[in-house]
Amino acid sequence: MKKLVLAYSGGLDTSYCLKKLSQEGHEVQAVTVNTGGFSAEEIESMKVKALQLGATHFECIPAEDQFYKQIIKYLIYGNVLRNNTYPLCVSAERIVQALALVAYAKANKADGIVHGSTGAGNDQVRFDMIFQIKAPEIPIITPIRDGKLQREEEIDYLKSQGVVMHWDKATYSINKGLWGTSVGGKETLTADQHLPEAAYPSPLSAMGSQNLSIHFKQGELVGINNQKGAPVTLIQSLQEIASKYAIGRDLHVGDTIVGIKGRVGFEAAAPLILIKAHHLLEKHTLSKWQQFQKEQLSSFYGMQLHEGNYLDPVMRDIEQFLSSSQKTVSGTVKVQLAPYRFELLGVKSKHDLMQSDFGQYGEENTLWTAAEAKGFIKVQATTQKIYQQVNNKA
Amino acid sequence: MKKLVLAYSGGLDTSYCLKKLSQEGHEVQAVTVNTGGFSAEEIESMKVKALQLGATHFECIPAEDQFYKQIIKYLIYGNVLRNNTYPLCVSAERIVQALALVAYAKANKADGIVHGSTGAGNDQVRFDMIFQIKAPEIPIITPIRDGKLQREEEIDYLKSQGVVMHWDKATYSINKGLWGTSVGGKETLTADQHLPEAAYPSPLSAMGSQNLSIHFKQGELVGINNQKGAPVTLIQSLQEIASKYAIGRDLHVGDTIVGIKGRVGFEAAAPLILIKAHHLLEKHTLSKWQQFQKEQLSSFYGMQLHEGNYLDPVMRDIEQFLSSSQKTVSGTVKVQLAPYRFELLGVKSKHDLMQSDFGQYGEENTLWTAAEAKGFIKVQATTQKIYQQVNNKA
Amino acid sequence: MKKLVLAYSGGLDTSYCLKKLSQEGHEVQAVTVNTGGFSAEEIESMKVKALQLGATHFECIPAEDQFYKQIIKYLIYGNVLRNNTYPLCVSAERIVQALALVAYAKANKADGIVHGSTGAGNDQVRFDMIFQIKAPEIPIITPIRDGKLQREEEIDYLKSQGVVMHWDKATYSINKGLWGTSVGGKETLTADQHLPEAAYPSPLSAMGSQNLSIHFKQGELVGINNQKGAPVTLIQSLQEIASKYAIGRDLHVGDTIVGIKGRVGFEAAAPLILIKAHHLLEKHTLSKWQQFQKEQLSSFYGMQLHEGNYLDPVMRDIEQFLSSSQKTVSGTVKVQLAPYRFELLGVKSKHDLMQSDFGQYGEENTLWTAAEAKGFIKVQATTQKIYQQVNNKA
Amino acid sequence: MKKLVLAYSGGLDTSYCLKKLSQEGHEVQAVTVNTGGFSAEEIESMKVKALQLGATHFECIPAEDQFYKQIIKYLIYGNVLRNNTYPLCVSAERIVQALALVAYAKANKADGIVHGSTGAGNDQVRFDMIFQIKAPEIPIITPIRDGKLQREEEIDYLKSQGVVMHWDKATYSINKGLWGTSVGGKETLTADQHLPEAAYPSPLSAMGSQNLSIHFKQGELVGINNQKGAPVTLIQSLQEIASKYAIGRDLHVGDTIVGIKGRVGFEAAAPLILIKAHHLLEKHTLSKWQQFQKEQLSSFYGMQLHEGNYLDPVMRDIEQFLSSSQKTVSGTVKVQLAPYRFELLGVKSKHDLMQSDFGQYGEENTLWTAAEAKGFIKVQATTQKIYQQVNNKA
Repeated sequence: MKKLVLAYSGGLDTSYCLKKLSQEGHEVQAVTVNTGGFSAEEIESMKVKALQLGATHFECIPAEDQFYKQIIKYLIYGNVLRNNTYPLCVSAERIVQALALVAYAKANKADGIVHGSTGAGNDQVRFDMIFQIKAPEIPIITPIRDGKLQREEEIDYLKSQGVVMHWDKATYSINKGLWGTSVGGKETLTADQHLPEAAYPSPLSAMGSQNLSIHFKQGELVGINNQKGAPVTLIQSLQEIASKYAIGRDLHVGDTIVGIKGRVGFEAAAPLILIKAHHLLEKHTLSKWQQFQKEQLSSFYGMQLHEGNYLDPVMRDIEQFLSSSQKTVSGTVKVQLAPYRFELLGVKSKHDLMQSDFGQYGEENTLWTAAEAKGFIKVQATTQKIYQQVNNKA
Repeated sequence: MKKLVLAYSGGLDTSYCLKKLSQEGHEVQAVTVNTGGFSAEEIESMKVKALQLGATHFECIPAEDQFYKQIIKYLIYGNVLRNNTYPLCVSAERIVQALALVAYAKANKADGIVHGSTGAGNDQVRFDMIFQIKAPEIPIITPIRDGKLQREEEIDYLKSQGVVMHWDKATYSINKGLWGTSVGGKETLTADQHLPEAAYPSPLSAMGSQNLSIHFKQGELVGINNQKGAPVTLIQSLQEIASKYAIGRDLHVGDTIVGIKGRVGFEAAAPLILIKAHHLLEKHTLSKWQQFQKEQLSSFYGMQLHEGNYLDPVMRDIEQFLSSSQKTVSGTVKVQLAPYRFELLGVKSKHDLMQSDFGQYGEENTLWTAAEAKGFIKVQATTQKIYQQVNNKA
Repeated sequence: MKKLVLAYSGGLDTSYCLKKLSQEGHEVQAVTVNTGGFSAEEIESMKVKALQLGATHFECIPAEDQFYKQIIKYLIYGNVLRNNTYPLCVSAERIVQALALVAYAKANKADGIVHGSTGAGNDQVRFDMIFQIKAPEIPIITPIRDGKLQREEEIDYLKSQGVVMHWDKATYSINKGLWGTSVGGKETLTADQHLPEAAYPSPLSAMGSQNLSIHFKQGELVGINNQKGAPVTLIQSLQEIASKYAIGRDLHVGDTIVGIKGRVGFEAAAPLILIKAHHLLEKHTLSKWQQFQKEQLSSFYGMQLHEGNYLDPVMRDIEQFLSSSQKTVSGTVKVQLAPYRFELLGVKSKHDLMQSDFGQYGEENTLWTAAEAKGFIKVQATTQKIYQQVNNKA
Repeated sequence: MKKLVLAYSGGLDTSYCLKKLSQEGHEVQAVTVNTGGFSAEEIESMKVKALQLGATHFECIPAEDQFYKQIIKYLIYGNVLRNNTYPLCVSAERIVQALALVAYAKANKADGIVHGSTGAGNDQVRFDMIFQIKAPEIPIITPIRDGKLQREEEIDYLKSQGVVMHWDKATYSINKGLWGTSVGGKETLTADQHLPEAAYPSPLSAMGSQNLSIHFKQGELVGINNQKGAPVTLIQSLQEIASKYAIGRDLHVGDTIVGIKGRVGFEAAAPLILIKAHHLLEKHTLSKWQQFQKEQLSSFYGMQLHEGNYLDPVMRDIEQFLSSSQKTVSGTVKVQLAPYRFELLGVKSKHDLMQSDFGQYGEENTLWTAAEAKGFIKVQATTQKIYQQVNNKA
């Protein structure tokens, strides 16, 4: 009999694992890491179910704050949208879940960590990577992957064990969290069909338009309109307001860690609005080269995060770069919400580089004379002038 | 008396230059490079005006094809949106105009090239750079910049010369071309106000939604729905269809070449749709690393183009990279247009890497076993595992 | 009975594979791909041995030219030294060998490809990757890896089969090829000891110094002193001359594909001299940004090549970038050889950007006036000036 | 009468400025910023001369520590060698000198800052940039640049003012500092000649070889052999030891800020040894991606520093990245010095990733099985396999 920690979601796969391993005589602790996807009620019902299925203990680790502090913050700093589209909803969650789970397993001296991923996808990589790296001494147990189990086999087993639960197969598999909701299935398995309106969990319910003021301080979200508060709370508020407009829906086509292209739908109103608003504020407050280098590093950061390489030390180095760059990213961004879309109206910031005492672009400026401008261009052109002259002659 | 080639647009500044330099006894040839902004009628009226103002010759160089071949093509290959927003409408045009002008000036053995830019902005840099590099022997003459002339002074001079034209100052200065229309003035001079509906030249006139099929062959636009044809024609058709939906409007905040932040509005329905559709097709047909490197290089390419460094040989090297990457970027992208927005519905491509005989993501795949997947992750994790183990101990 | 193609080197591991698989009744063709490491005599003796061990056929594919055309050329264009040190001697060879072997296997309709790599290192990855990608239908057979075989077991088996060959274990394992010789063993297994003089195959035999002129045309080696000829021949000549000076020895510490750090000695006189000479010529003939972007891309190219990702299409795109950049890299580099080191003396090139009709750096130049220089700096400083002004106030 | 602060070096140009401006009735304070190039005696003699020439005050600001803390530290962290060759001796010094001078000028409420640069080179840019950015309100005065003055004119003027000093024109202009000595003139003005032995200030005086142990802690130099101490002192010690071997001599060919190619000789024994030793330690202690990203960022950092853009905020962001990366860069590097060259023998570090409890590369490792290795490669190859399969068919 071993003490096992199971990454438990309440779904069919992890319910199977729980029942099966308990039946085999192990002490199975069902642990759920809440990255913003579960309400108090859902957690209560997960607990009941878990204990019923044989868990010796159920634990829900609240991880929204960790999720923000360890990852979301940097995704905002970096304006990270994988392939210019996807806010990394699921990938980012898995990392935080894995970190919380392995910490729990170590603290509880577990003999094994169990997860319900299959052998076909990304999640197994993210979980296995972090478990192995943080606790190479703890074996990883993956019944679904090892047994190549199909839904029906799992249901049959559970029935045979007297578990009478309803496991209907939804058309779409939905994963909800603080940083967005992914929607996979049917059309997303093709390249040319797109998700119907009904596939998205948050229906359009608001009409007309609405303006918001989003306040940032050194790159961090500190307020929405008159509401101040912790970033997690503010993200949730923004999500509530903006999801009514069916904003932030899209299909992401990307490279999975295992080398196959995958496609997934998502709705992520708050993440999209925050990233775009933050980015606009940066355009006003950062230097050209800060923006250039941030973009290059953040694209790499997003790729590594997606692929489960969160613990590579280069990620910490990039986070330091990003944090440093946020020193002046403070101010307010005005955003207009409308059905299916939003518009950035403008910014106010004491750090706005558009407005200086030296004058503004396009105005009759007092920063330099015509002669000086001509000198600038002349010297600037020198290198290409020489290139042409030398190579025309050669 | 010198033979001067004037970059002529028919506006107040270049009209002033034309009159003034003719009056001073020079032979002034008024040359307009049409990058898609002028209709045949407009050109005819520019000609009449130019000759009236004293030009010895008027020439309109049609440059849409050059514009596409030398620049737009690569902007599509690279999915170039400056600061993730702006398709470089104006910056790109200026380069093509400067190249055509300097070629004309050399062919016609001009004693000087005249342009009407002020000393405050980007355009002077783009013009001067290319003129100096391509023809260092031809002096550049810039009456507006040198005289720091104001509108009123120019109008007064023209009046004093008997020129009775109507130079009303529009609220917004508009620059139209094949790759989009820029809109500057009033609100764009602030950081926090946005352009009103009426500021955009193309009003919303279509309702409901409309689907389009956009066909690419090796990265180049080859058809829209059933229409085949040259890219320039297709871009114009797309623009006509999509501009009715008021698609592709936004405000760009960017770093000017002279170091000040600038803000400009634009509408660019066709460019935005084409770039996003092309990008989606690439997500299906390019490898992860092609996309990664393309993104980094294209961002740099866009920056250099914007800053007038088109003739730096590194630009030719990047173009070769981009061309090479387009070998498999063929297929059709379905797009849905709706008022103020568009949605990418999906792609069809023989080169789609989502669909291979080996199987698909998420399905029960036959590409590897559970054991192989575990081996993959184990070896993959090695480096970070060692890092943790060594540094926990150290 | 299957038709198997064996990647044969004449060493213990591949001899074991050959004997074993022949004995098991397969038709084994022993194929050696010569990337410059084997003399005609060595090949003859390999043939005799192979047939003796049971090969139905021995084939030596001469691949020096392919090696140069497919890889070395780009390593020179890119000045590629892994970790700023290592010319990728072995890694690059393996790729060419794998490509030639899989082509041979396909042309001969082989039922399997055999290689002798263990499960611990880089070579298995490079071989397996290219075999699987190019011929997913042909199984890969790896007796040493699968059996985790030790030297002694292999020798015992061969003895038991009546094979009486001498398999002495040298202190160092040496791998020789056109692009350098690697030396591994004993000290290279530690982090703090270095290889003794005797470990390097080419002893110091020349004294004093010697000057060479190395001629490049569009980035390619076209002559050494008065000798013209094909690049492969010239590399061999240079190697012969320079290896007498014990030039190009070093220890490379790098990240293996499997995530562990590895250390290896090498001697690579010709590669080091060529890369450094070529690089100097580029400093004279390329623009600043060409050099910058080349460096970034080439570092990535070297990493991917090292890791066996030669067939990723991004590699072809980078090759196009690199080829484009070489248009003006023509001229002569003078090099001085001395024991253990060489010095670059200077270059002569019609494309040298140091010497233009416009004048030279440091001289009283006529390219611009003091006022123009001041204008240049003033405009250049604008952006940072504004940053300071705005943020000091904020 | 104005209070002027003069960047004073004791050379002809700044002596001229001092005399001339004093004569014109200004209060001129001669300020020397010592970045390691001047001995106490030299400073005393500079003082005497300055007062004699009319300075109302002479000040020598000792800036070696600032030089190390603000710049050299990061050049070591980043292994920065411009164009893979040049440790940025002079460029880096100018930045620190400019920063110290402008701080002095502001503290002393100067009415102007004077420097002796010509209008042809890099130094004027570095000085002007930093002066303007940090103190836009203080005018910059540059008599040599403005007057396009030649040596003879300056000497004549000084003579006419009764200044009898000896201004012999040396064949080479030498600039000495903590981070190396540059040597320009005669041969460096050509592309094909190299500096003779005698041009280098430190002649070869040691024979045979000598081993050193260089100790680093988190990337910073903390000891040499048994000597502990501050980095500046240790750099000086190392320089004293190693310069006897005539190590670290080379010719740098690079792009000046003003767009012309320039060539300069240098000797920089300590910088070269430290950078290479530090780099080796990093190869043992950093992850692959840390090294990759550091290289890309550091190359950019070096370019910007060279071009005087030290105050761009992106430089601070990169410094944070670099500092973060140094957490594990602690240990000892053994180096062997010999005439004209040095060799890195090996490292000892508790953070060495080559040696872990999990086993070592090349050994029969226990980290994974043959089957796992094969699984790794199989999954790794998937993406390229699909690419080939899809595109062969298409």
